[in-house]
Amino acid sequence: MDLYGKDFLCTQEWEVEELMAVLDLAAKMKRDRFSPRWSRVLENKTFFMFFYNPSVRTRQSFECAATELGGHAQFLEPGAMRLKTEKTAGETIEDATQVMSRYASGLGIRILEDKIGAYGEGDDLLRQYARWASIPIISMAHDKYHPCQGLADIMGWAEWFGQGPGHTLDMGVLEGKKLLMTWGHGALARSWCSVQEGLLIASRFGMHITLACPEGYDLDPQVIEWTKTNCGAHGTEFQIVHDPCSGYEGAHVVYSRHWMSPRAYVDGEFQKQKEVEMALKYPQWICDEEKMALTTDAIFTHPMPVDRGHEVTDAVASGPRSVIYNVAENRLHVQKALMALTMGNL
Amino acid sequence: MDLYGKDFLCTQEWEVEELMAVLDLAAKMKRDRFSPRWSRVLENKTFFMFFYNPSVRTRQSFECAATELGGHAQFLEPGAMRLKTEKTAGETIEDATQVMSRYASGLGIRILEDKIGAYGEGDDLLRQYARWASIPIISMAHDKYHPCQGLADIMGWAEWFGQGPGHTLDMGVLEGKKLLMTWGHGALARSWCSVQEGLLIASRFGMHITLACPEGYDLDPQVIEWTKTNCGAHGTEFQIVHDPCSGYEGAHVVYSRHWMSPRAYVDGEFQKQKEVEMALKYPQWICDEEKMALTTDAIFTHPMPVDRGHEVTDAVASGPRSVIYNVAENRLHVQKALMALTMGNL
Amino acid sequence: MDLYGKDFLCTQEWEVEELMAVLDLAAKMKRDRFSPRWSRVLENKTFFMFFYNPSVRTRQSFECAATELGGHAQFLEPGAMRLKTEKTAGETIEDATQVMSRYASGLGIRILEDKIGAYGEGDDLLRQYARWASIPIISMAHDKYHPCQGLADIMGWAEWFGQGPGHTLDMGVLEGKKLLMTWGHGALARSWCSVQEGLLIASRFGMHITLACPEGYDLDPQVIEWTKTNCGAHGTEFQIVHDPCSGYEGAHVVYSRHWMSPRAYVDGEFQKQKEVEMALKYPQWICDEEKMALTTDAIFTHPMPVDRGHEVTDAVASGPRSVIYNVAENRLHVQKALMALTMGNL
Repeated sequence: MDLYGKDFLCTQEWEVEELMAVLDLAAKMKRDRFSPRWSRVLENKTFFMFFYNPSVRTRQSFECAATELGGHAQFLEPGAMRLKTEKTAGETIEDATQVMSRYASGLGIRILEDKIGAYGEGDDLLRQYARWASIPIISMAHDKYHPCQGLADIMGWAEWFGQGPGHTLDMGVLEGKKLLMTWGHGALARSWCSVQEGLLIASRFGMHITLACPEGYDLDPQVIEWTKTNCGAHGTEFQIVHDPCSGYEGAHVVYSRHWMSPRAYVDGEFQKQKEVEMALKYPQWICDEEKMALTTDAIFTHPMPVDRGHEVTDAVASGPRSVIYNVAENRLHVQKALMALTMGNL
Repeated sequence: MDLYGKDFLCTQEWEVEELMAVLDLAAKMKRDRFSPRWSRVLENKTFFMFFYNPSVRTRQSFECAATELGGHAQFLEPGAMRLKTEKTAGETIEDATQVMSRYASGLGIRILEDKIGAYGEGDDLLRQYARWASIPIISMAHDKYHPCQGLADIMGWAEWFGQGPGHTLDMGVLEGKKLLMTWGHGALARSWCSVQEGLLIASRFGMHITLACPEGYDLDPQVIEWTKTNCGAHGTEFQIVHDPCSGYEGAHVVYSRHWMSPRAYVDGEFQKQKEVEMALKYPQWICDEEKMALTTDAIFTHPMPVDRGHEVTDAVASGPRSVIYNVAENRLHVQKALMALTMGNL
Repeated sequence: MDLYGKDFLCTQEWEVEELMAVLDLAAKMKRDRFSPRWSRVLENKTFFMFFYNPSVRTRQSFECAATELGGHAQFLEPGAMRLKTEKTAGETIEDATQVMSRYASGLGIRILEDKIGAYGEGDDLLRQYARWASIPIISMAHDKYHPCQGLADIMGWAEWFGQGPGHTLDMGVLEGKKLLMTWGHGALARSWCSVQEGLLIASRFGMHITLACPEGYDLDPQVIEWTKTNCGAHGTEFQIVHDPCSGYEGAHVVYSRHWMSPRAYVDGEFQKQKEVEMALKYPQWICDEEKMALTTDAIFTHPMPVDRGHEVTDAVASGPRSVIYNVAENRLHVQKALMALTMGNL
């Protein structure tokens, strides 16, 4: 298996063995964070980070990852780029990307719901970059997927149910465990990328899945279809429920997160205010200790930033079975492993 | 003495011996700037810099310091962070800081007068970060204190009165010397942090202090109290005068700098325009050659940027007894030493 | 020859032998990009980049260059600096630059047409920085000149007519070749810096020059004068034509690029909209296959970003004789060589 130069836009497009290779290396890197085995893998090398949307944690973890591999991540805001559009003169992605491929070892791109006019446009943009680039394109979260979050999630869950961070990562412990992916209310209008990636990768690693959301909060039908297929291949269950409680029964992992509705785009405009107003109407959709008591002693997981008091109560988010900080830390380790394998020739 | 992991928010909270340890190392680092003894102390390590307020020199000197220690400083503007407030959904400092502690070796924060609604709110914010962080929090200037400036100041003064940069730093030469800390007029409304830190640290190292300002320009009573206490412990004099000339008599170090009045905040709003108008009404408050002639051959010091023509004349600022560039350079060295000791396990 | 500490504002101010030293090292660096011979030349050292104007490629290539030399380039936007002007309080360039000289190994500055009030003000600003700095000032493109682009251009052309990137760079192959520098129409108002640098450096290396533009698009008379002088010293031809076709005859290198008119500034204001409207009136000024057929099998060159469909057709820009990506890549190599020689003591 050789991952050198491979794009990473969605976990579904990679083989389980390839994902495992990243996770295995991430676990080794976590155990021995500053080992000379990887502290110079990207020495003198550059990773470009294109933030169409700002971010704190993604920026921090990718830039740290490059530094810990001995390289350097350049923070770039493409707002400063005059890209050609149908209406304005500017540079084509073909030109921009072919030159960037001469300078850098990889290119990460982040583009979320409010920088596009319709769901899917961000994914299209990443694939245009990928078409022209001769270096790997890495999603740092886009409208459809957030593959690095998916890897960090399952690494954190497997650590919990396995022997913990200090030991060999055994992904087998997730087989037959049940994930509840549940919508949370709130004063935000969040993208689908993290939750969709969570459904895809959990079902690839043999988990039962329950997706819970109010009527009218469906996700991408293609992702649902893939999740069903993944579950089918493992003989695990996949169900969708529309009440805030029933999904908790028997769950081992509870992932409570707000997401926007499929009506978020009207005529190419992101209806943020409307989405926020609508999302505040379901106060019963919150993960709390009462609901957690219905589970099989489940852990609480979330990609952060957590909207405390809306998506989850403080008692759960800061409770002894919350893995949110461990998962957030794992962003660093999986991204280091990913960069080392796709850009560092490790 | 072990400074590893220690926050640095104000020099008054550190022992003199601890401050000396930083200064001693800074002097060694200045003598042998790129020695392998410290050029890899932060190798593969990250220092986060949070600029609520922009800065040029502080940014430059901290980022250079990290580079010279072999590490990397990430430039972050928390405007991109959605922090939870009483009115808006967002992330708590608890969550943000606990994750950052997993990624980085230290966190520097800068927040000045115009980003807060009342004096002290910046200091409160830093202490909130410090409460949750397991990595050291370093003030890169906040509303109350600017401890790195304080260290750079006294290092520069001790070099002048001692044997100069190439030799062992003898802080004893400052004992019994007189510092004039004087207000300067101008078209700015500057924070109290540098001058307050100057009063505190000079009085810790045995200097007599004269504070001169127009009526109505009092500083933080707590700082004045501490300065008195520090002088009391050394048997040195502390006085406050309200005329622009008398403080110069017998001074060895003249620090002329504008600062805002205690009336700068009204109902949670920073009254910048009003402060600037008021500050222009005292043209006699300028450090010039005539006033410097009253001193005991004093040096001129200033934390920069200098407001020439208001705070000080060109003849003094660019004169042979101006130490402003030496002090500015020392920012780099004291910050390198501080980072090496608190983050680098040196 | 010792280039250590030397400013680089315009190729015309350097000896041909000095430019050759940079080009020779750039060619070696291109052949062996990550050789230990130069991968630590700027270790622990900082290069400041001052972007009065944003940029993608210049930022990317300079920051990559510093990384590949083992150093670090700090991305700084001087908008955050309060510089003193006739009207506002702030810091003088004297003060800012003397301190920066204590921190860093070099300072790059970019300032283009829309950040100034009259042609030449950008060049004046760079020379003010150069006056006070004790570290080299490097132009990263300013209103008058773009010397790094000039070096990248001729390196790319010499590679094409010589034995290619893998071999010794023989600049002699450019002697007696003809450069067509032609105006292109478009919806932009571009600065003169790249094309002026192209005229100067091509004429220094023995090329015949034809400058083609509509009436009213004259360049800086001083640059035209220098170009004539350079051609005179080599016995080569220099001519100016005002039709879009005749210059192609016999050309070996075609450089088609839009530039603003000399009427772009009125009363200290940059007339962007007016320039764009005027520039769209000459659709016949485009480099296409028909015109390229008039040449002596010429290559197409451009400093990028290319305004496809205006300055040049897709068929030419993406054709087999387009050297645009090679030239863009060379920006990295010439800048590495320049930094190594002026800042790295190589």
